[in-house]
Parts: sequence; structure tokens; C-alpha cells
Amino acid sequence: MIAVGFIGLGVMGGPMAANLVRAGYDVVGYNRSRSKVDDLVAAGGKAASSVAEAVRGADVIVTMLPDSPDVRTVVLGENGVLANASDGALLVDCSTIRPDVSRDVADAASGNGIRALDAPVSGGEQGAIDGTLSIMVGGPADAFDAAKPVLDVLGGTVVHVGPSGAGQTVKAANQLIVAGTIELVAESLVFLKAHGVDTEAAIRVLAGGLAGNRILDRKAAAMTSREFTPGFRVELHHKDLGIVTSAAREAGVVIPLGAAVAELMAALNARGDGALDHGALLKLVELLSGRA
Amino acid sequence: MIAVGFIGLGVMGGPMAANLVRAGYDVVGYNRSRSKVDDLVAAGGKAASSVAEAVRGADVIVTMLPDSPDVRTVVLGENGVLANASDGALLVDCSTIRPDVSRDVADAASGNGIRALDAPVSGGEQGAIDGTLSIMVGGPADAFDAAKPVLDVLGGTVVHVGPSGAGQTVKAANQLIVAGTIELVAESLVFLKAHGVDTEAAIRVLAGGLAGNRILDRKAAAMTSREFTPGFRVELHHKDLGIVTSAAREAGVVIPLGAAVAELMAALNARGDGALDHGALLKLVELLSGRA
Repeated sequence: MIAVGFIGLGVMGGPMAANLVRAGYDVVGYNRSRSKVDDLVAAGGKAASSVAEAVRGADVIVTMLPDSPDVRTVVLGENGVLANASDGALLVDCSTIRPDVSRDVADAASGNGIRALDAPVSGGEQGAIDGTLSIMVGGPADAFDAAKPVLDVLGGTVVHVGPSGAGQTVKAANQLIVAGTIELVAESLVFLKAHGVDTEAAIRVLAGGLAGNRILDRKAAAMTSREFTPGFRVELHHKDLGIVTSAAREAGVVIPLGAAVAELMAALNARGDGALDHGALLKLVELLSGRA
Repeated sequence: MIAVGFIGLGVMGGPMAANLVRAGYDVVGYNRSRSKVDDLVAAGGKAASSVAEAVRGADVIVTMLPDSPDVRTVVLGENGVLANASDGALLVDCSTIRPDVSRDVADAASGNGIRALDAPVSGGEQGAIDGTLSIMVGGPADAFDAAKPVLDVLGGTVVHVGPSGAGQTVKAANQLIVAGTIELVAESLVFLKAHGVDTEAAIRVLAGGLAGNRILDRKAAAMTSREFTPGFRVELHHKDLGIVTSAAREAGVVIPLGAAVAELMAALNARGDGALDHGALLKLVELLSGRA
């Protein structure tokens, strides 16, 4: 039985770890707040009371953490993953972090005899529960092949996109497109409502043409009824758009719409809506249009 | 047999008229350049040598014209549709024009005993050929019911979205979302390429997650291989974004991303790329990034 150490059992990590249990893996989970560990135990997993305990003896280590500093601490830190993992273990970091941090992690791992992949995901809580996430994977091809069976449990579309960091770069593009699409849909909905159009019918016909997208399919109805329970929080998408704009600037690529939506998400966050779902960009369009 | 007068047999109108012939309608077509009329005759339709000849005796009149002034001339003009159509005829304008012009047309038609619908479409040349267009219809409910069988031949998603002009308003939102999504995909592709990521693999995984959209499905591959044969021309999308920004301004709705992409499309058009497919927004991102 393959042993998986799973660190970070939040909104995304929790259901992902549970899916691995269901698929027959021996999953040992660790999370800062203990209640999430109890949930995993209830689902058939095992509890660890530290990172060290979760990763010791694991064949595969999966991390799902909020931000770059968390990954640095948990993976590279004193009592972290690399200090305790077995030689030859496979580290799969599903967190969305800066590409350069992913490269640092891969380098450090390699120095410890551990193969590392950056494998950020898209598809939200529902995708995590259903095991239908899109997973964009960066790292050596042999490590990807070794991790593929585990990743196939977690995701429906699992693609190796390049060397270490490439998964994060593709995830950055993903977050750019998602934020931009939510904003385009938000502008359209406020525009249509202002013109007295039946927005429910409009969403249906827009979704059927070249304007069709997952935001219209999955989020527009909640946005029109002003239902902003996350889902994916504004504060996290704001963090991700910081990664996008830095990575674009580093590469010398000019992203007019990406930069604009990063500012709009920053405004929404600065105004105190960081805990709402990112569909709340609608609120900001209303505010800018004197319709709040 | 139901008689259809069809005016405007271009890239979109040509295959739409041919689909009506195939569905058993008696289609009489008119187009300014005669070769398009010959194509319709070859497909089993009949030729008219004037607007008057096309609409005389028609039960249903379909117009598919480039812009607002064309619709004014063809429908309201001296030898136009209203001057020659039979009492009780149904006018279905599939052109993408200003909502206020659609309302003027509907008012004038009603004064002539003719029921009018604005019924702009989305889905491009392929959608027109396949009869799978999205059609957003504005006008009286009884006129919509009467036109529904004809519209169902032309489209896969046919939705009544409100009174006269509402179809155009939804089409404006459609063009906002389509232009914005193309730009978001263009920015992402240039960004990914600059970071050395395998863009083909990236498109696949982006399309599978919350970033998924029809532009990734249908246009991103052509964009990466810099294939910009239209499709839908930049100059037409530029025209449509003028409708979007005016209609938003009229309603007092602020559309930061819509306005930004309207300027980018305007730049592409001003630089002489009006005849290219709108996927050529990629060229502009490259240009802005010193990668042209």
C-alpha cells in the first residue's frame, strides 16, 4: 500500500486527501488546525501531529498550502518536509505560489534526494470534491510519470507543461483568465440589468455562443442573485494576481487587461471584501457605476 | 410553402439563407454584389435584383447587414423593406447594430403593419454553416413565437431576451465578453511563451478548469500558430465595441475591462489590421511587449 503524507487539509486539501483515501492510498494528514485532521480520520485517513510525522516514511508527499511563505516554511523549514522525508520520496506541491519559489523548492529537494513537482490546480472546491481538477504540472518528466496515478485520483485533466515552475506559470495564466472573465461577466451583467434586459435569459444565450465560458456556466447565476459565499476568496485571488503581474513584468510582457483586473481585485480586497467569493467583482462594478 | 426574402448574403447571411432553403423554405435572396446571389441560386434559392423584389410577397424577411446605416437604408429607405413588404409580414433583422436603431426600425415597421424583431447572432461563420448560432431576440413575444421556426433553422440556442433593442443589448454584452476573452487569452499566450512554457499543453489544461472558454477551445491554437484569416474581422469587432461603449455610457455603467479592450481593438484597427481575424489581438500584445 502506497503511503501518502498530506499537508494542508483546507477547503481544497481536505477533499483531495479524502479522495486519495477512497482510492486506496494510506493517507497520513497534517493540518495546523486539528479539526481538519479529525475530518480526514473520519474519512478513513490517519492523523499526524506534525509535518515530520506526516512525511516520515511516505512514498508521496502532497502539500496544499495558502502562499509562498507557507511552502517555504513547511518544505524547507527546520522541522519541515525535506528534513524528514525518506530518500527517493516524491514531493507534489499543489499550492499556488510564485514560480521562482517552486524552482527553489525543487532545487533544495533534489539536493536531499527527493523529486519535486509543482502541481497547482484549478476547478475550485467542487472540482476537489469530485476529483475533476485541472492540474498543471511542472518538473522532471520521470517525476511526473511517477506521480501520475496519484494526480489522476485528484484531477480530470492532468498535464505536464514543462520544467520546475512551469506549473505555477500556467496557473498564473489561469488566474489571469479567471479573474478577467469574472470581471467581463460582471460588467456585462450590470450593463444588461441597467438596460432592463432579462439577465437569466441573457446568460443562457451568451453561454451558447462564442462568449461561452465556465464563469457563465457556474458563477453568473450566483452573481446575479448576489450570492458571494466562497468558493474562492477575493484575498487569495488578489494574492495570485500579484504573482501574475510580477511574473509578467519579469518576462517583459505587457498585460493591459490582466493589470486592470489585478487593480480591481486589489480595490475589492482593500475595501474589506477579501473574505467574499471572487464573483464579488460584480459589487465593485456596481459601486463604480453608482449602483451599489 | 413559406416565402422568405433574405437580404445580405455575405459570410454569415449566405450560409444562413442556404440553411433555410434546405429546411424547405422558398427563399428569394438579394445582395449588393451579384455573385453571392448566384451562390444562393446554386443552393436552390431564387434570385432578386433589388430589395423590393426580394421582399414583395414574403411572409418572413431576414436581413443580415454590416452596420446601423445599412439597416436604416435597406429597411427604412425609399425602395426599402417597409415600402415593399406585405401587410402582416415578419421582419427579422439579424444584423448587429445600435439598440436605438433597432427600436426605430421596430417603430417604423409597426406603423406599416409589419412586426419586427432584432435577432443578432453569435457563433461565427462555422455556426452559420452548421445552423448552431446563438440568437438573442428582442421584440414582441407574439412576433418571437411566429419567427421561432425560422430561427430554429438558423440557430442552436434561440432566446427571447426582452422588448425591441434587447437583442442588440445582449449582443453588445456578447461582443464585450468575446473581445475581452480573446485579449485575456492573447496576454496569457504571450506570457506563457515568454516563460518558455509548452503553450499547446497549457491551452489543454487551461481549457479544462475554471478558465475554460470557447476562445481557448476554438481560437487559441490558430492564435499560437499566428493564423489570422477571418473568421470575424477586427474592423467589425471594432465597430461593435463602439456600440458597447456608447450603450454602457448611456446607461451610466462603468466597464473598465470593456473600455480597455475597445481601445486595444481600436489600436489594432488603426494600425491597419482591420481585415484580420480578431484573434490578431495577440499581435498587439506582442507589439506592446517588444516581441513583434
